[in-house]
Amino acid sequence: MIRIAVIHGPNLNLLGIREPELYGGDDLDTINRRLQQLASEEQIELRITQSNSEGAILDAIHAAFGWADALIINPAAYTHTSIAIRDAIAAVRLPTVEAHLSNIYAREPFRRRSVIAPVVIGQVSGFGSESYLLALRAAKSVVERARR
Amino acid sequence: MIRIAVIHGPNLNLLGIREPELYGGDDLDTINRRLQQLASEEQIELRITQSNSEGAILDAIHAAFGWADALIINPAAYTHTSIAIRDAIAAVRLPTVEAHLSNIYAREPFRRRSVIAPVVIGQVSGFGSESYLLALRAAKSVVERARR
Amino acid sequence: MIRIAVIHGPNLNLLGIREPELYGGDDLDTINRRLQQLASEEQIELRITQSNSEGAILDAIHAAFGWADALIINPAAYTHTSIAIRDAIAAVRLPTVEAHLSNIYAREPFRRRSVIAPVVIGQVSGFGSESYLLALRAAKSVVERARR
Amino acid sequence: MIRIAVIHGPNLNLLGIREPELYGGDDLDTINRRLQQLASEEQIELRITQSNSEGAILDAIHAAFGWADALIINPAAYTHTSIAIRDAIAAVRLPTVEAHLSNIYAREPFRRRSVIAPVVIGQVSGFGSESYLLALRAAKSVVERARR
Amino acid sequence: MIRIAVIHGPNLNLLGIREPELYGGDDLDTINRRLQQLASEEQIELRITQSNSEGAILDAIHAAFGWADALIINPAAYTHTSIAIRDAIAAVRLPTVEAHLSNIYAREPFRRRSVIAPVVIGQVSGFGSESYLLALRAAKSVVERARR
Amino acid sequence: MIRIAVIHGPNLNLLGIREPELYGGDDLDTINRRLQQLASEEQIELRITQSNSEGAILDAIHAAFGWADALIINPAAYTHTSIAIRDAIAAVRLPTVEAHLSNIYAREPFRRRSVIAPVVIGQVSGFGSESYLLALRAAKSVVERARR
Amino acid sequence: MIRIAVIHGPNLNLLGIREPELYGGDDLDTINRRLQQLASEEQIELRITQSNSEGAILDAIHAAFGWADALIINPAAYTHTSIAIRDAIAAVRLPTVEAHLSNIYAREPFRRRSVIAPVVIGQVSGFGSESYLLALRAAKSVVERARR
Amino acid sequence: MIRIAVIHGPNLNLLGIREPELYGGDDLDTINRRLQQLASEEQIELRITQSNSEGAILDAIHAAFGWADALIINPAAYTHTSIAIRDAIAAVRLPTVEAHLSNIYAREPFRRRSVIAPVVIGQVSGFGSESYLLALRAAKSVVERARR
Amino acid sequence: MIRIAVIHGPNLNLLGIREPELYGGDDLDTINRRLQQLASEEQIELRITQSNSEGAILDAIHAAFGWADALIINPAAYTHTSIAIRDAIAAVRLPTVEAHLSNIYAREPFRRRSVIAPVVIGQVSGFGSESYLLALRAAKSVVERARR
Amino acid sequence: MIRIAVIHGPNLNLLGIREPELYGGDDLDTINRRLQQLASEEQIELRITQSNSEGAILDAIHAAFGWADALIINPAAYTHTSIAIRDAIAAVRLPTVEAHLSNIYAREPFRRRSVIAPVVIGQVSGFGSESYLLALRAAKSVVERARR
Amino acid sequence: MIRIAVIHGPNLNLLGIREPELYGGDDLDTINRRLQQLASEEQIELRITQSNSEGAILDAIHAAFGWADALIINPAAYTHTSIAIRDAIAAVRLPTVEAHLSNIYAREPFRRRSVIAPVVIGQVSGFGSESYLLALRAAKSVVERARR
Amino acid sequence: MIRIAVIHGPNLNLLGIREPELYGGDDLDTINRRLQQLASEEQIELRITQSNSEGAILDAIHAAFGWADALIINPAAYTHTSIAIRDAIAAVRLPTVEAHLSNIYAREPFRRRSVIAPVVIGQVSGFGSESYLLALRAAKSVVERARR
Repeated sequence: MIRIAVIHGPNLNLLGIREPELYGGDDLDTINRRLQQLASEEQIELRITQSNSEGAILDAIHAAFGWADALIINPAAYTHTSIAIRDAIAAVRLPTVEAHLSNIYAREPFRRRSVIAPVVIGQVSGFGSESYLLALRAAKSVVERARR
Repeated sequence: MIRIAVIHGPNLNLLGIREPELYGGDDLDTINRRLQQLASEEQIELRITQSNSEGAILDAIHAAFGWADALIINPAAYTHTSIAIRDAIAAVRLPTVEAHLSNIYAREPFRRRSVIAPVVIGQVSGFGSESYLLALRAAKSVVERARR
Repeated sequence: MIRIAVIHGPNLNLLGIREPELYGGDDLDTINRRLQQLASEEQIELRITQSNSEGAILDAIHAAFGWADALIINPAAYTHTSIAIRDAIAAVRLPTVEAHLSNIYAREPFRRRSVIAPVVIGQVSGFGSESYLLALRAAKSVVERARR
Repeated sequence: MIRIAVIHGPNLNLLGIREPELYGGDDLDTINRRLQQLASEEQIELRITQSNSEGAILDAIHAAFGWADALIINPAAYTHTSIAIRDAIAAVRLPTVEAHLSNIYAREPFRRRSVIAPVVIGQVSGFGSESYLLALRAAKSVVERARR
Repeated sequence: MIRIAVIHGPNLNLLGIREPELYGGDDLDTINRRLQQLASEEQIELRITQSNSEGAILDAIHAAFGWADALIINPAAYTHTSIAIRDAIAAVRLPTVEAHLSNIYAREPFRRRSVIAPVVIGQVSGFGSESYLLALRAAKSVVERARR
Repeated sequence: MIRIAVIHGPNLNLLGIREPELYGGDDLDTINRRLQQLASEEQIELRITQSNSEGAILDAIHAAFGWADALIINPAAYTHTSIAIRDAIAAVRLPTVEAHLSNIYAREPFRRRSVIAPVVIGQVSGFGSESYLLALRAAKSVVERARR
Repeated sequence: MIRIAVIHGPNLNLLGIREPELYGGDDLDTINRRLQQLASEEQIELRITQSNSEGAILDAIHAAFGWADALIINPAAYTHTSIAIRDAIAAVRLPTVEAHLSNIYAREPFRRRSVIAPVVIGQVSGFGSESYLLALRAAKSVVERARR
Repeated sequence: MIRIAVIHGPNLNLLGIREPELYGGDDLDTINRRLQQLASEEQIELRITQSNSEGAILDAIHAAFGWADALIINPAAYTHTSIAIRDAIAAVRLPTVEAHLSNIYAREPFRRRSVIAPVVIGQVSGFGSESYLLALRAAKSVVERARR
Repeated sequence: MIRIAVIHGPNLNLLGIREPELYGGDDLDTINRRLQQLASEEQIELRITQSNSEGAILDAIHAAFGWADALIINPAAYTHTSIAIRDAIAAVRLPTVEAHLSNIYAREPFRRRSVIAPVVIGQVSGFGSESYLLALRAAKSVVERARR
Repeated sequence: MIRIAVIHGPNLNLLGIREPELYGGDDLDTINRRLQQLASEEQIELRITQSNSEGAILDAIHAAFGWADALIINPAAYTHTSIAIRDAIAAVRLPTVEAHLSNIYAREPFRRRSVIAPVVIGQVSGFGSESYLLALRAAKSVVERARR
Repeated sequence: MIRIAVIHGPNLNLLGIREPELYGGDDLDTINRRLQQLASEEQIELRITQSNSEGAILDAIHAAFGWADALIINPAAYTHTSIAIRDAIAAVRLPTVEAHLSNIYAREPFRRRSVIAPVVIGQVSGFGSESYLLALRAAKSVVERARR
Repeated sequence: MIRIAVIHGPNLNLLGIREPELYGGDDLDTINRRLQQLASEEQIELRITQSNSEGAILDAIHAAFGWADALIINPAAYTHTSIAIRDAIAAVRLPTVEAHLSNIYAREPFRRRSVIAPVVIGQVSGFGSESYLLALRAAKSVVERARR
């Protein structure tokens, strides 16, 4: 059994309600249900959190330490500024997959830089809610390779 | 009747107590009373919040969605760094007026850039507590024009 | 009685005729009439100038010295380059309110920096012709506070 | 049936032979075999090319036009400099997935910028040869959504 | 009797458990005990806080106002981005010593700039948990000099 | 009949008299005669202005509005700094060809940037007085295409 | 008789087929026919090449040496990066006219810099396929002036 | 007999009236009288102009051509932005001395760069009205050396 | 017994005589006496040097090699430019504490960067002459930890 | 016996024919003959290639793998842009000497940066065709030292 | 009687011997003789030093303290890098005139910035050896004004 | 007979004693002996100096003037900052070869720029002590070519 913590960053609770042309029409509950379904097919246990607070996201990363085998995080707007999230990921040393709904490299310049990226294993971005499912597959493959 | 949410950012709870030479001698209660008085003259209903936490400010912006016709926000120190507040304002799509007590363009270089400004309707800065009253008039005029 | 000089910068004589989607549908005469109307309500005497020439704008600022209690200036395209206008404002030491029709911080990068802003009292931008009326109220409040 | 062109950029013919600590132990043939296997499971027809020449990669992108439903490209060292590849992708207007073996954002600064990224649908990076399989799934999902 | 507030920033609750090669083997409790011991030898009363939340750190700085004679703060990841913490320190006007476990100037470029440093009295960095003890001695000496 | 306004910027009245090695040996009168000759061959009516004053150039652009079908402008030294000329061209919305005697991209770095270029149809530079004749042909072709 | 080599850079073989809103509706054959027609009217012999490969473009420039009196080149995407093309033009010392279909100075920032421009005689950009005809006239005038 | 044109730039007509702590207590008439007195002692004929308009300053430089042996110019605020004044000085090829009342290199960063300086013979700055007298001596020495 | 070399950089011989508001009222002899007193209490042998010459400071660092257990250096103005001092410290591989009287991070931008810092163990800055005493305690603690 | 591959980059086939004042009067054949002569004196076997194509240069580097003991490469214009050549050299892990005819550090700014340099053993530049002979001696000495 | 220390920086001992086209034909002895002559006419006592060593120049500035009324310094190559000389001038608080033989603002970019300029009274540059005589007159005028 | 001055910069007296992994195991005496041996084989007379002082290095360059036919200099840490050494080399106009033990372009960013390089003939870097022998051969070849 693989255990993975999924952390959704700020404003993602508004997903599906607003700006569907940018982020797609799925709301966060739908995304979480699709994640849970793929997880049960793949024998993965998930813990999913969403918070608008940088401090609470740090707490969630710390809480994953000792329980999770890997992290999936969409840091949203904190992607571009939060050295604290970067440090938390580096500190707990869990293999982490960074996921983004939109292709952040095709957006405004200030969104093209992720301060999180240098401490993660890999990144999946640009496929809407599909990004989360690809991230789950990627995280599973990383954990399995490490166990071998 | 027009409904407007007013959000005061970090450290503004210290207003009037300290650094009056920079921000003027009014404390936050006085400013809020003057806002309420002008609001009742102008047939405006106000909801006023102050928080030091970026996450709580996001929550306040989300909460305004569905209730308010416009936002007035003084993001204070978060003006210069918070992409999350910018995203929240863009997501709720409420017409927003950015207000500052001091003229941020006459201060240190790092204070001269607002990451919030590109998503607001307009900005009033530099007139001390008067900035809030001008912002309230500006917000009212924006809402009325949209209703016409 | 308060005396205020209003100076409109380059290309503003074309207002209302062209690009109404960017600057609103009011032409400069309409704006000036609305300013005069609010001024007479508020016991303010106005002198209004428009020029396309940087040198003529300097002359207008110099001329205000000794007559006006405050300046309102929309430096338009010179906002971003004219150190001479900045020096003139600093030299005559009149309290000055900078006004812009559009939100300059939501436009092209080279329009996001005002070289005038560091020498003014405050700034109002983004509310179309309403920006001038708010600027007039702001200027009045600054003069009255100084007289007290 | 979905048709996808896969293009491997410069130096990737050396894969698996050298620097396994950086790019993993799989050589290009192994990766291609794994791609073909997943493709046949998923009813996808593949055409795979590798070239060290920027001009030949442009030719391959042009050739995909009219045949392929989507592109998967690992531009390798050209990721960071080739405006010509970017223009070719934009010109043929095929949905494109950018794949990288390593997490380019955790490497030297000059590797952290992709000039290709702004014209692709999405990006998968950092999972070794697994990146290609995730990219294939992503490309399939993009094509299917467009057909619906 | 001298009263000093000590504030530990984000992720420091993980100290001693992880990355001992970078931050030393002491956990936060050990550091706090050593601080308390030196404080009681030197007739200093301490109040120690740790938080992952920027807002809560602001609250702690505000709370020190009126009680403490000096602040010791290790802003950790917020060192490089938090204008709000800088403003809070400037607002409460308590003499502040900035402490860092590691030598931030020998680390990644983005860690070499402290936005906090311009408002503190001085800085001690690079001596592991010893940095805190040196900071305590420094804070004491600053307070005593001011009293003279 | 096509009507085109030609505007020569600052210092161009000195042409042909000084620095022939840089700008060629033709003086401004000769250039204007050659322009008039080609214009009469091509059934074009011309109005030609030269001014050293930025404000007077704005006036000339405004005056072209309502009369001219296209503008040809050599903004000379104002090419690199005048946002006001850029705004005037954008405001009158006449198709504009930017002409330069010398190849500005082979000169000092500060001459390699034209703030005017983003609002013009196209640019001809580097062919001495021939640049004006090519610009006249280009302007004619643009007007004719628009009429079709 | 004047001999001119015309070199079309990468992706230009797709012209007219795709993105007509950006580059116009003419395909490369049409452009070449119009060039040949003007050339025969003006007593010019042309040799026209197109290649996607930077190396092949260098070969074409070298081949022009000893045959051509002038070069016309549209380096397309290589405009912004190819020091090798710049060096080849400088080495063969043929007068060269740089041509662009679109106004590169009104496009994305990375397209606004031509590394080729400092070694050419002049530049024509922004007039669609007309740019090539203007370039041919310009090249002819440069050769004739040199022969005088 | 040596003939020298002296040109005072924008806002200098306000000298002596305002900001004596920055520019000294002498007004422009006093400075001009002291210049005339030294000139008559040194057998120099002077022509002195002041203008707030960049275009009028260009005209004055052009007018000096054919009459003056040297120029003394204090371009004031235009020092930092006027490529047109630079071009005019370069075009008339008169030996030019740049004079500044204040030490521009000890002021705000944007005042520390003179775009005029690369085309002048030399510069005198920081000695108040004395700067003009030193500039006159310098100009005389340059003209005499050239005559030898 | 611990042996520590203390090196004072350029201009520090003027300490206490001039600019006491910036560097405190202690002259260099007083600081050295306080250092010697603390050293004798802590069983440390000191060798103290001051020089205005970068070369002589290199010689002093070289001389410490083979004798000292640690270095304390206040490189003063050379802090910001001397790669040679940095190389010397790296070459002799003595644990080094960098000390500054003032908080260099609260001063002019060019003083906020220490090229020395990346090769030292730690830094103490901002506490006036107290900085040296804290540096001595820090150096002792570093040596003792290494001996254990 | 030592085996060394020598690779000449783009435009070097024009050597000696053009621009002798910059690159010296030797053509590429002369250089290759002098290299072969020194090689036979020093018991070195050479394989020499020249290509204008970046892709062909990559192929040549790949081909050297398994045959050569060292590489000598003059990447010419690709020196400044080709991450692909850099990656190829890093991948084959052959000790490589970078040679330049001219002193690239005394030329235009964009030629002063070599993206190849960080992966080579050393560099020889500025001695005309002599640079190649010095590079051959350097390569030999590197191979011999490694064999010892 | 006025006492002035004159300090010549590095390489100035070679003056007049080499590069007369850049620095003029006078050697340092001639310049010093002319300075002494003007000094005796103007009742000024001079002390003149030249050194190639930054440390020795600091010593000379320190030595002037207590003796001189003003400093004249040509820091030559140290103009652009020596924070230590800047600090020494600021520390001794003598009014200082910076002199340069050549117009440093018309030379290479790295020579256009003086780190010394912000702490001097004024600057004279570009008049060859005449710059020193003008500097002497300027220094005298500064001292006399201060005495009044 | 050829005469060559060899100048070793700061910290090179420590060579061979420390950091052999970076600079090789040879000490400075060994390098000097190998230089003398090759010099006597090649009929070259050498004068070798080492100094840690920038001023003393300037003196050594001046002293070479009139005696040496060429200079070999390893400016070590001064490579990156000393405009004074650059000026001295330019002033004595001796052909100069810059030598470095390590490949400075593969080290920290601040070591990748040589301010000396633009005034030397050529550069040899990265071959340990062999760099000096190659530099000697290069210097000889330069002198011989000049004599021809």
